[in-house]
Amino acid sequence: MNIRSIHTVTHEQYRHAWDNSIPPVLTVNENEVVTFQTRDSGNDQIQPGDDVEAVRNLDFSRINPISGPIAIAGARPGDVLQVDILGIETRDWGWTAIIPGFGLLADEYPDPFVHVWAFDRERNRAEFRPGISVPLDPFIGVIGVAPAGPGEHPTLPPRNVGGNMDIRFMREGTSLYLPVAVENAMFSLGDAHAAQGDGEVCGVAIETAATVTVRFSLHRSISLKTPEFDVSGALVRTSAEHGYHATTGIGPDLMEASKDSVRAMIAHLERKRGLAPDEAYALCSVAGDLKISEVVDAPNWVVSFFLPNNLFQA
Amino acid sequence: MNIRSIHTVTHEQYRHAWDNSIPPVLTVNENEVVTFQTRDSGNDQIQPGDDVEAVRNLDFSRINPISGPIAIAGARPGDVLQVDILGIETRDWGWTAIIPGFGLLADEYPDPFVHVWAFDRERNRAEFRPGISVPLDPFIGVIGVAPAGPGEHPTLPPRNVGGNMDIRFMREGTSLYLPVAVENAMFSLGDAHAAQGDGEVCGVAIETAATVTVRFSLHRSISLKTPEFDVSGALVRTSAEHGYHATTGIGPDLMEASKDSVRAMIAHLERKRGLAPDEAYALCSVAGDLKISEVVDAPNWVVSFFLPNNLFQA
Repeated sequence: MNIRSIHTVTHEQYRHAWDNSIPPVLTVNENEVVTFQTRDSGNDQIQPGDDVEAVRNLDFSRINPISGPIAIAGARPGDVLQVDILGIETRDWGWTAIIPGFGLLADEYPDPFVHVWAFDRERNRAEFRPGISVPLDPFIGVIGVAPAGPGEHPTLPPRNVGGNMDIRFMREGTSLYLPVAVENAMFSLGDAHAAQGDGEVCGVAIETAATVTVRFSLHRSISLKTPEFDVSGALVRTSAEHGYHATTGIGPDLMEASKDSVRAMIAHLERKRGLAPDEAYALCSVAGDLKISEVVDAPNWVVSFFLPNNLFQA
Repeated sequence: MNIRSIHTVTHEQYRHAWDNSIPPVLTVNENEVVTFQTRDSGNDQIQPGDDVEAVRNLDFSRINPISGPIAIAGARPGDVLQVDILGIETRDWGWTAIIPGFGLLADEYPDPFVHVWAFDRERNRAEFRPGISVPLDPFIGVIGVAPAGPGEHPTLPPRNVGGNMDIRFMREGTSLYLPVAVENAMFSLGDAHAAQGDGEVCGVAIETAATVTVRFSLHRSISLKTPEFDVSGALVRTSAEHGYHATTGIGPDLMEASKDSVRAMIAHLERKRGLAPDEAYALCSVAGDLKISEVVDAPNWVVSFFLPNNLFQA
């Protein structure tokens, strides 16, 4: 990267809650560049070589750390904070788990699962099983500003001021627009993912630590209720020449239709690729995309779940 | 196309309901190729030169015709019917409307709107307003087999046997897998769209008539609860070099989050592109995509709505 960062938020400067009364770790001006060192969402509780015992023993009071907050001088409630994501560099490994009680199909997957991924920099992929690998496309899961309400707000749910949105397009080259709710915005980010599908269906992506560089600017001529963003270039960065397999869920509730489409893809992966159900569920989370195909043909909506065939061209 | 079709379902062989007691218009064997002439979803009630009066005067008893049914000899309940979509050729114009009472934001758009599109074959686009055009990517909105239940089933809602799924990947090159519910499957299709975004948010795409060629085969070694499909090649067929603008809806209900994301995009199009709200809503329906970004960070889910910037590079 050629853009000089003059500020750094270190991996020791993290919090476990959004709280607009937390003093900023630094204050920056518009157009200044800031580098954040982020911790993984498990806060180092899962390490290479670990097995499911590490998932069983997770201390939930330590998960979902966010780096910051930083103050953007002059930002006022009602402004829009533009965050240009200039760079994301992850460490060279990550982990994916099924955490009991968490994820779209939590009731059906009560047992823990874990996979630790080594990143192949040359191929820009990570191996899941022999013959199955996932293209790396790193992004930031948590990015946002402090809510207006007083006190502590947990970092797990996203809100209209951003946070744990887990939008996989929060990657290098994207510009995010956030509604500012408090003086000086009080911005934080964290929870880098090396890859994830739309939906993050098992609740976990390829969790990793990263160095993230951003630049801020403010807009007062527009007003937003929820975050918006500009994605540069193509949405799909990896080769799609091998096509996709897709499953569907059809019915009057988008959540149930989403679940049905994922269940069908897990069944497909068991049948066609010989994966165990928990393996299939985890692979869906890091590489499969939930789309709303139609939401108007009452009373039944269609949710489709897409998995790229290039996962199996390793 | 080099594949010879030996069977044709004409545009006069259509129905307004799914009903497994309707006699087939023809019976085909596995691996035979069939060409369907489809009527548009309005059944010719909207024509070039028409204004919103044509929408106001729509006779709803005549809409959503489907061509067929045809019997696939030997298909039995529990089988999977594979439908290879070999070709879709549309006529050279289409229409998009806001129909009062219909669509994701029906309560907010009580007045009719209509746009008739002329298809530019050379550029493979259709103009919406000067400087705004939509890439053509034709597909079949309705494709399915007869439900097991007796009597008439309306053609508007999709079901687990397919039907009006409005999945925009039901295009040339796709193979669809449908669970067969009755003897001989009793297959129909219709409702060609020249373009549509994921969601079809105003309830209407670029509606057109088409000639659709398909080939059938049967599978007995697998069993499906809902339709699945294989998409060949890339999901995005048009240039993405200009990137995307995206809006979000964040909250505990996927339907409300979907609505919020579309409302935000309409506001963006008013502000940035000078469109009227109804124009923006209709453009969202034919060219914008609803994605479920995360559905696991309880209690709030994120739906994102993407609009390609290439619409404005006409």
